[in-house]
Amino acid sequence: MSILIRNVLLEGENVDVLIRGSRFERIAPELEDTCAEEVLDGTDMALLPSFVNCHTHAAMTLLRGYAEDMELHTWLENYIWPLEGQMEEEDVYVGSRLACLEMIKTGTTFFNDMYWHYPGTARAVEEMGLRAALSSVFIDFNDQATADRRWRECQELFREYRNYSDRIIFALGPHAVYSVSRASLERARDFALEHGLMVHIHMSETRAELEQARSALGMTPTRYLKELGLVGPNVCACHAVWLEEEDMDILARTGTPVIHNPTSNMKLSSGQFPYPQLAERGIPIGLGTDGCSSNNNLDMLEEMKFASLSCKAHYGDPTLFGAGEVFHAATRTGARIFGLDAGRIREGMLADCVLVDLRHPQLVPDYNLIANLVYSAPGDCVNTTICNGRILMRDRQVPGEGEILARARETAEKLVRERAN
Amino acid sequence: MSILIRNVLLEGENVDVLIRGSRFERIAPELEDTCAEEVLDGTDMALLPSFVNCHTHAAMTLLRGYAEDMELHTWLENYIWPLEGQMEEEDVYVGSRLACLEMIKTGTTFFNDMYWHYPGTARAVEEMGLRAALSSVFIDFNDQATADRRWRECQELFREYRNYSDRIIFALGPHAVYSVSRASLERARDFALEHGLMVHIHMSETRAELEQARSALGMTPTRYLKELGLVGPNVCACHAVWLEEEDMDILARTGTPVIHNPTSNMKLSSGQFPYPQLAERGIPIGLGTDGCSSNNNLDMLEEMKFASLSCKAHYGDPTLFGAGEVFHAATRTGARIFGLDAGRIREGMLADCVLVDLRHPQLVPDYNLIANLVYSAPGDCVNTTICNGRILMRDRQVPGEGEILARARETAEKLVRERAN
Repeated sequence: MSILIRNVLLEGENVDVLIRGSRFERIAPELEDTCAEEVLDGTDMALLPSFVNCHTHAAMTLLRGYAEDMELHTWLENYIWPLEGQMEEEDVYVGSRLACLEMIKTGTTFFNDMYWHYPGTARAVEEMGLRAALSSVFIDFNDQATADRRWRECQELFREYRNYSDRIIFALGPHAVYSVSRASLERARDFALEHGLMVHIHMSETRAELEQARSALGMTPTRYLKELGLVGPNVCACHAVWLEEEDMDILARTGTPVIHNPTSNMKLSSGQFPYPQLAERGIPIGLGTDGCSSNNNLDMLEEMKFASLSCKAHYGDPTLFGAGEVFHAATRTGARIFGLDAGRIREGMLADCVLVDLRHPQLVPDYNLIANLVYSAPGDCVNTTICNGRILMRDRQVPGEGEILARARETAEKLVRERAN
Repeated sequence: MSILIRNVLLEGENVDVLIRGSRFERIAPELEDTCAEEVLDGTDMALLPSFVNCHTHAAMTLLRGYAEDMELHTWLENYIWPLEGQMEEEDVYVGSRLACLEMIKTGTTFFNDMYWHYPGTARAVEEMGLRAALSSVFIDFNDQATADRRWRECQELFREYRNYSDRIIFALGPHAVYSVSRASLERARDFALEHGLMVHIHMSETRAELEQARSALGMTPTRYLKELGLVGPNVCACHAVWLEEEDMDILARTGTPVIHNPTSNMKLSSGQFPYPQLAERGIPIGLGTDGCSSNNNLDMLEEMKFASLSCKAHYGDPTLFGAGEVFHAATRTGARIFGLDAGRIREGMLADCVLVDLRHPQLVPDYNLIANLVYSAPGDCVNTTICNGRILMRDRQVPGEGEILARARETAEKLVRERAN
């Protein structure tokens, strides 16, 4: 498969871009004789890297709007967990397809996911054409039998994973230090080391988590993970809100990436991500939407605005987390964290990209395209989404959209009906 | 003119809605024999009141993205004010048309504006078909000659205003207590009283403003306005961030509405609007986007999310400023503040409304439409926008869009070129 994008704006210049197979082959003004199978007109469009959503629970789109404006424990225990508990693999497939559709329509082509019924999400990713790092939630609450059962499942998923395309990265998902036993965390560490896997974990999301770790473990979650050797470039530490100076030094020294989820942190009143202190230390910072029950969408354009503005507001400094920095977090830093040869438009790199429609009113005038994307434009400025050299959305049309929405509605109704019974 | 909307979802029920002239005439299931000139199919659509943007500077769309991530004074003095100083009436017309286009596309049909070159904005509103309260910026910095000149201009605008349609409300725009002399504020008070006008003012936006008032006037801006008699239901106090308990009591006692501009407050690091304390006192709270150089868009759907989430985050309580409350602030409370017979869908009320497309992925599933609008959906979920019984956007198409964008781009380029010379 080959695609030629004619006359598109790339970093201030009009160029032609040839994609062959999964990668950008040539980028230059007025390419000739490309014999591309598909030609896209890039006039009035800008070519940009597509977004990398570094932390989500895709199938939770099915819970969007189900329970709102509640105290955390009521929300989790009376609403979210019971409905999640009813979900089966097919439901997760349906919810993940809705998530993939939403991501494609808002310019995201990679997401780092942690959820139940792994094969459901994997199937959605395969069909929809995105890229994802998928991990199965691992929770044992210190129960040995649960831990053993979960490990068997995890190893089985790892064996099956060989059957998936190379757009799916297998990762481990120990949920958090308060929900996973020490032995299981060590097992995750060793298994990750043995097979070169990423580890996806929630870390220091809430004040309660920090306090519980101090009292139960005698140290912060970060120090505990450091003691276990569960830090480093392959450990994706999500949220990272409640950190002490020493925690940040540990993350910096070990090159552990952290994922910022500003919208979720605000909606759940979790606290403020210490961006200035982390950025100053050169810690890789990715951006994530978290799941749709605490956001309630997967739109990385909106997430960028929340990231920057929450930082400016909290620290009282409008110069912090500027548009360029936040755009990098949402694209190239995210790609780097997951070892993807993407996040920039360069010859030889993976063709994961979007065409943004410069005729969108919220992108006019165009003094500063990146500032317009971060602070003004919503997801529908994305006209075309390409992943792995394949067009997933063209002129805002994604094949099968109606059926995906209909199935999601039916499944949501079924879950609520079952819950009532 | 009459419009029949067939089979549309209204507050949980499918109904037909007949609009005749500028108002909703009949709302009932399966209306017959309406002889409507225009029939819209409301299948898979929800009918909702359109948004009321209670504080903006529309023509500042022309400055969108022009200067970003800067310290406040550098930003204002070296970038925003010089470019604004170059703008002429035609530029303001062009910028206001772009603003109207953006508002129509994101479901807003009323805005409360304060800017220079009033007739430019008025002309844009007339042509584009929205409703607006327009005030000319009044700043005299205690200079008598400036004050007198501005008053003559203001009175002339008031005379001309009789020529506009009833979609335009004339209001007074004394900028703020630090930029307008006591004599001019008193003149505004008397003129407003005499002619039954709204007064649009910035109040207690920043800590610096509060401190300056304390030192220069010996009291808070709110107390000063109270002393001048410039409080009450006709005074629209914008921002209202830095308030003391006594200030809030004054606002409550006098029925003075306040306008919350969460995105602008966050982007400029102005501080946190004390929503819980104001709401508790029953003070009318409207929502505004502020201008596009500190937001950078006019999307009230996004503004609602920022309003709710900034409140939850700041006060550490996820139950605060829930979806229903914020939707009311953005619709019916705003309408009430401006004396509009709008903000709800009822027989006899003004037909200012939107059709929201329930097939938008970010509105699926649909457990709670209002929560989906506040927390998930972006502006492009709005399919049709109607103001004063006239269709301004149909199936996301606004007549003349291409020309509006082209003129805005040209004007922005001209302003930057002139600035460079």
